[in-house]
Amino acid sequence: MEQGLAVNMLPPVVSIVAKSGTGKTTLLEKLIAELKLRGYRVGVVKHNAHQFEIDHQGKDSWRLTQAGADTMLIASAEKIAMVKQSGAGGEPALEEIVANYCGDVDILLTEGFKRSTMPKIEVHRQACGDSLFCRGENHDPALVAVASDSPLELDVPVFDLDDAVALCDLIVETFRLP
Amino acid sequence: MEQGLAVNMLPPVVSIVAKSGTGKTTLLEKLIAELKLRGYRVGVVKHNAHQFEIDHQGKDSWRLTQAGADTMLIASAEKIAMVKQSGAGGEPALEEIVANYCGDVDILLTEGFKRSTMPKIEVHRQACGDSLFCRGENHDPALVAVASDSPLELDVPVFDLDDAVALCDLIVETFRLP
Repeated sequence: MEQGLAVNMLPPVVSIVAKSGTGKTTLLEKLIAELKLRGYRVGVVKHNAHQFEIDHQGKDSWRLTQAGADTMLIASAEKIAMVKQSGAGGEPALEEIVANYCGDVDILLTEGFKRSTMPKIEVHRQACGDSLFCRGENHDPALVAVASDSPLELDVPVFDLDDAVALCDLIVETFRLP
Repeated sequence: MEQGLAVNMLPPVVSIVAKSGTGKTTLLEKLIAELKLRGYRVGVVKHNAHQFEIDHQGKDSWRLTQAGADTMLIASAEKIAMVKQSGAGGEPALEEIVANYCGDVDILLTEGFKRSTMPKIEVHRQACGDSLFCRGENHDPALVAVASDSPLELDVPVFDLDDAVALCDLIVETFRLP
């Protein structure tokens, strides 16, 4: 079965974590653009603790979801969009999401899975306080680097918050992307 | 491999087809609601020939897609949303969509895959003309029923356009839903 082979070929995952309001999405945008420049297929998973609406009220896709569709898909030549209700099982684990939806990307960046055991890059801004989520009370062994707007003395490499090129170099090297 | 077993358990698919403007989405809404009332997990696939935007401009998900993410996912306790770029392969076949994203539903309704070989229900309104897409020049052997606002003499059952209960009975019986 091809599906059996695919299990061994899941992409590496790196989570971008931070305290709220630190600019995770801005860094993600830069990392995605830099990885795309280098020719990689990039996946992103954003964790959203709250309810979110992705489809527009009144559109057909929204009407079908409102009618009760457990899985709603729209397919075109350019892209495919899906809204799947979690059902009784609740939110799927990150590992399950990767296995089900991200087998066709080279690298997966995630935002907001702070408590996963996946490798992490923490975003730090001095204005948001001195402490880090992954150092101090929690010592997260999965922290691989910090992107910061100010100098820090740490046991992992610290990069300038705007230096997406250096952070990409680290990702490519750490995960041995081709 | 559990994935190997799942291949044999793909849900039945029925396509709702019609000439444009005939009210496919309205009928789909009614069918979804009726199937949900009966306790089934329902998937819907809508074919969209044109570009569509599902996520809101300015939202994080939109920003990540704009930055170049090939696959963008948002996960919460309630649901998971995905936008996946088709890439060089173009639009995936309906069969591929079903296998990849719809293994967990009992029945899949699709809208707009007129030329697939999947079983079909055609929606007909007298105001949109006498002819049917699946009868006449094309004789589509996959047509299982017609939902019409006016009487028709056909080789397949004709149901009232508003009678979602009778159409659901037909779907449950035809596909032997439990």
